[in-house]
Amino acid sequence: MKPDRPLRVAILGATGAVGQRFVALLSNHPWFDVTRVAASERSAGKTYREACRWLVPSQMPEGIAPLIVSDLTASDDIDLAFSALTADVAGDVELTWARVGVPVFSNARNHRMEPDVPLMIPEVNPDHLGLIPGQSKARGFPASGFLVTNANCSATFLAMALAPLHRTFGVELVSVVTMQAVSGAGYPGLSELDISGNVIPFISGEEEKLESETQKILGAQRNGAIDPADLRVSAQVNRVPVADGHLESVSVKLRNTATLDAVREALQSFSGAPQSEGLPSAPNRPIVVLDEPDRPQPKLDVDRENGMATFVGGLRPCNVLDYKMTVLGHNTLRGAAGGSILNAELAVARGLIGGAA
Amino acid sequence: MKPDRPLRVAILGATGAVGQRFVALLSNHPWFDVTRVAASERSAGKTYREACRWLVPSQMPEGIAPLIVSDLTASDDIDLAFSALTADVAGDVELTWARVGVPVFSNARNHRMEPDVPLMIPEVNPDHLGLIPGQSKARGFPASGFLVTNANCSATFLAMALAPLHRTFGVELVSVVTMQAVSGAGYPGLSELDISGNVIPFISGEEEKLESETQKILGAQRNGAIDPADLRVSAQVNRVPVADGHLESVSVKLRNTATLDAVREALQSFSGAPQSEGLPSAPNRPIVVLDEPDRPQPKLDVDRENGMATFVGGLRPCNVLDYKMTVLGHNTLRGAAGGSILNAELAVARGLIGGAA
Amino acid sequence: MKPDRPLRVAILGATGAVGQRFVALLSNHPWFDVTRVAASERSAGKTYREACRWLVPSQMPEGIAPLIVSDLTASDDIDLAFSALTADVAGDVELTWARVGVPVFSNARNHRMEPDVPLMIPEVNPDHLGLIPGQSKARGFPASGFLVTNANCSATFLAMALAPLHRTFGVELVSVVTMQAVSGAGYPGLSELDISGNVIPFISGEEEKLESETQKILGAQRNGAIDPADLRVSAQVNRVPVADGHLESVSVKLRNTATLDAVREALQSFSGAPQSEGLPSAPNRPIVVLDEPDRPQPKLDVDRENGMATFVGGLRPCNVLDYKMTVLGHNTLRGAAGGSILNAELAVARGLIGGAA
Amino acid sequence: MKPDRPLRVAILGATGAVGQRFVALLSNHPWFDVTRVAASERSAGKTYREACRWLVPSQMPEGIAPLIVSDLTASDDIDLAFSALTADVAGDVELTWARVGVPVFSNARNHRMEPDVPLMIPEVNPDHLGLIPGQSKARGFPASGFLVTNANCSATFLAMALAPLHRTFGVELVSVVTMQAVSGAGYPGLSELDISGNVIPFISGEEEKLESETQKILGAQRNGAIDPADLRVSAQVNRVPVADGHLESVSVKLRNTATLDAVREALQSFSGAPQSEGLPSAPNRPIVVLDEPDRPQPKLDVDRENGMATFVGGLRPCNVLDYKMTVLGHNTLRGAAGGSILNAELAVARGLIGGAA
Repeated sequence: MKPDRPLRVAILGATGAVGQRFVALLSNHPWFDVTRVAASERSAGKTYREACRWLVPSQMPEGIAPLIVSDLTASDDIDLAFSALTADVAGDVELTWARVGVPVFSNARNHRMEPDVPLMIPEVNPDHLGLIPGQSKARGFPASGFLVTNANCSATFLAMALAPLHRTFGVELVSVVTMQAVSGAGYPGLSELDISGNVIPFISGEEEKLESETQKILGAQRNGAIDPADLRVSAQVNRVPVADGHLESVSVKLRNTATLDAVREALQSFSGAPQSEGLPSAPNRPIVVLDEPDRPQPKLDVDRENGMATFVGGLRPCNVLDYKMTVLGHNTLRGAAGGSILNAELAVARGLIGGAA
Repeated sequence: MKPDRPLRVAILGATGAVGQRFVALLSNHPWFDVTRVAASERSAGKTYREACRWLVPSQMPEGIAPLIVSDLTASDDIDLAFSALTADVAGDVELTWARVGVPVFSNARNHRMEPDVPLMIPEVNPDHLGLIPGQSKARGFPASGFLVTNANCSATFLAMALAPLHRTFGVELVSVVTMQAVSGAGYPGLSELDISGNVIPFISGEEEKLESETQKILGAQRNGAIDPADLRVSAQVNRVPVADGHLESVSVKLRNTATLDAVREALQSFSGAPQSEGLPSAPNRPIVVLDEPDRPQPKLDVDRENGMATFVGGLRPCNVLDYKMTVLGHNTLRGAAGGSILNAELAVARGLIGGAA
Repeated sequence: MKPDRPLRVAILGATGAVGQRFVALLSNHPWFDVTRVAASERSAGKTYREACRWLVPSQMPEGIAPLIVSDLTASDDIDLAFSALTADVAGDVELTWARVGVPVFSNARNHRMEPDVPLMIPEVNPDHLGLIPGQSKARGFPASGFLVTNANCSATFLAMALAPLHRTFGVELVSVVTMQAVSGAGYPGLSELDISGNVIPFISGEEEKLESETQKILGAQRNGAIDPADLRVSAQVNRVPVADGHLESVSVKLRNTATLDAVREALQSFSGAPQSEGLPSAPNRPIVVLDEPDRPQPKLDVDRENGMATFVGGLRPCNVLDYKMTVLGHNTLRGAAGGSILNAELAVARGLIGGAA
Repeated sequence: MKPDRPLRVAILGATGAVGQRFVALLSNHPWFDVTRVAASERSAGKTYREACRWLVPSQMPEGIAPLIVSDLTASDDIDLAFSALTADVAGDVELTWARVGVPVFSNARNHRMEPDVPLMIPEVNPDHLGLIPGQSKARGFPASGFLVTNANCSATFLAMALAPLHRTFGVELVSVVTMQAVSGAGYPGLSELDISGNVIPFISGEEEKLESETQKILGAQRNGAIDPADLRVSAQVNRVPVADGHLESVSVKLRNTATLDAVREALQSFSGAPQSEGLPSAPNRPIVVLDEPDRPQPKLDVDRENGMATFVGGLRPCNVLDYKMTVLGHNTLRGAAGGSILNAELAVARGLIGGAA
């Protein structure tokens, strides 16, 4: 179901690295019309062009450059808001928008693990939208207001790759080692002196997110709450000198016996709501299985499918758990802004926004 | 026990990347005197300076630069030989040297998994030298001739970090994901266009080596053969744009219950023959435990302890196995030439070379 | 003038790094239809997909992947050929094609400095096409056969930036220091171990090309020969760890006095035949002047204008010559395959190919 | 002349990137004893180990780690001070130290161009120390107090390479294009996202420093003032993704005719006060001439001679000026802390410090 009119969109935190990705992705969106770019007091009052040190490879969209940046005060003349705010302010600001009746699709971590907030990957858990009526009611939001979050970037690709296996065979144990791109640390992020020619085996709080978010994403919605999936995840995270694209070396133990071919087939044939409902930002296939032994690679694969697919390669048996594989996704597209936009598209298609139902 | 005279050393494959590391490390060695630099026909007859595109950061040793490169023909006027040959020729050439009575310390993979050849890490399995008398005899070498190999570079650091745990608690399962430096691929090795800003999740044959060599290294010598250690290893290997230093994200399951403190103590207090016997190339401590959460890092730690120690950090509990840790070592020093030299030093100290017994 | 039918195109050396750029750029070309991909005997007989290790960021064009690679034998069922051959074979092979009546647009250096061969940049010296009738006749080619070359990649951007200054004010002296991308060295090109974190102040033969080609490109065609421009160029070249994009620090002495504004205006307003004749691959503006003091930068600017423009920034007075500026261009697009295609488009528009006159 | 007792040294700005280089270089200095590490209020009161995020490749010196960091207040229980302060505070703080009678050797730019302050390179202009008595007197410092500065890092290597040419043949014009390392921007300095795989053709204020400081350094001291050298310099500066080492493509016009051999000989045979007086930090040769066409390179040469020499290669005729060459030096050693220490050593040897005269 498409919206019957262009929906007015606000981008909260529009001048930062993730905010700019929202701007770039929404500049020609068929459903969404960016009418407000909001940021901190420091930027408010300037044009977007002035307020923003543009970091996205493509040029700044001409339609958005002259917009005047507003502050973050919530207003109800907006159909939905995307939040690219940093965690120090996202928690409170997002609530003020929901309270005036605006649905908020957030990339921030603050509300992700709250029991009534969907932690969404539309191909994986579209039914988690079922939390929304209860959320709005319990929190006293107007009926149109609610919060939806996307997952941590690394958790997104892990959960996507696990979803078909969990659905088909049951996943019991997951060991994941990530090699994460520097763009995941925002801008200016890492110093060249620290990361060039180096690997840093630590990102604060990241392992915990991978371990807990995966359980929630793959969990079942039941009576307005999420039952976490009954699987254990162990994560070790590393920062590598790569611009874009988180690579993950994953091994899994399944609950039911499965041949390598069956595992491959489950991954390759996986599809979900974005594909069947023809959402504008949906990749053709959510998971692309690569058979060359040395793929996926960030440099060669991360921009394929508009950065919205998850790439899986190196599928093979494992001496410790059952199977090993290599997983790749674009951390600032599907893993951040693009993922949030797809979440919003699903909510629109399901009639939760804009009175389009 | 020190040798009572300088031992005459040949370096086989002296002009390649690993061969140059041997040259650099041996140029001021207290026991060893490089009297022959041998390489393929193409280089033979030139001075070492002419034959060699020098890749080591320090300058080419003045004492070795004017030596005339010889071919690889074996001769018995040498006390021991180091082999930096590539796998296509190492297997046969090394045998020809052993057959004239020269002990060969090899960095090549060819003979590593043969049952009568020690796969040595002197801190871990010095008793594997016990294979030598039987090896010489069974293969018909003169009594002074034998083969000793060092391990694959990644396997070296993994086995070193596992050794104290295996000895104290028993290791049952190991999951390791490597992030390996480009110098491990030799010279010219990887194209800048392929690896810069990228991670390549594949190195041919490397996972198998990690999985099998670790079992042999940690195995027990019994009646002239090695009983592989009863543990299973699953490896996933990646190449990263780092010059030197293989980093490994490791998780282990122990046979006996152990507290985090006990594991830390076992690692930190580990010591072996090179330390107790005061071998010239021995690091003060074979394992250096780092407590900062973001260490070890290749760029900051790999050159410490002359590149001869193994660095372990990030020790913490694991949701899937028992403990996680990050392991780092210098792939062309301890992981290649330096490891071989330490093997030879142990053999000298144990009276197996030069009639020094 | 557009061709009245699709022109049949051969790509010579189609499997190499530059050849692949031709394939990518021509896969949807409005005038040209790739009907033959030719390469060395080693590749001949395989499909293009099999014969080629694809290096271009976009996916291999589906229409070309199943073509069978032929050898380099010339045939007259082709309307024009692009040569991406390496210099060891390009000289002779290109002649064999011209001799059967096929116009050859070459990216190789072999014929560039021959007096009857246009060294073309369509915005700069379209009149050099006037050499062609004399060339065909003197060399005994059929009337339809001839050779046109594009310039060395660094010389292309230098000559483009100098052209409006030379035309308006006269250029007397040029000092240029290049910082050239690794893709300019082909594949595999430079070892990561050599160039990562480094600058190499040498590229064999490159300085001479910059110094001599610039004079020919900016020279005047008179009676079937080129009068080299009366200016002197001094070049110093460096290789830097950048993927794509040659950056050049340039200073110039003009023959006539010119204000900074006048110089800027000459650059900014420059336009030529590709723009006025609407050639398919023409950039909107051949020279884009950037006013931010820290631009152009390879990473931010090289892909703009489809990699077909030359970017000039940092225009300011010079203490030694008259003015300084920074010049950037895409070495494998405008500086190689894209430049050759634009040359061919001009020749078609001018009625020299395909009987379209 | 050596000091007859260890001289007590303060390092101002000891916790920053350059301050740490002073600490590392002075930790085993034969003449100097670091007795005070001073920094901003934020660090004062902590141990040096706590206050400092250590960036130098070697480990933090054990003798200095436990020192308590003091604030920047001047005190006269110090024999000399090194200033690694940033330009926003260096100007005033350095004066307060000179006013209590402490000689200050500064790496900051603030006082460099003041007419009574030596801008020193000991091999080039040791006679500029002759400014000191007049400086102390005119400024009302105690006789023991004065200011000496070292040059901008890029200017240091340029002036060193020009000095023998200027002395022998006279230098009239200089065109220099720099490719500067990221460590020159301090820590954290440049974002990986900005500089990795890129060149940035701009560093604020750098070109002006190169152009003016070179004239002062090569100028003549006459009656307590410096006559700037009568030569013109044009500089274009670039930042490149190199860790350490500024590379410069230089061309020069000489006043007197000189053969290439004579120029080479002048460079190669250059020597100065640090060498003849045996200063502890002096390189054996201030200029090392390299004959391989592709040298010097930052990665291969910058650490040679303890980072204290200037490397010159690629000497060849120039089409525009007379000769071209490539110059390299270590920007944080000879170009910063090491250069300042050598300045102080000269002052000590000349009897200007510590009553050693």
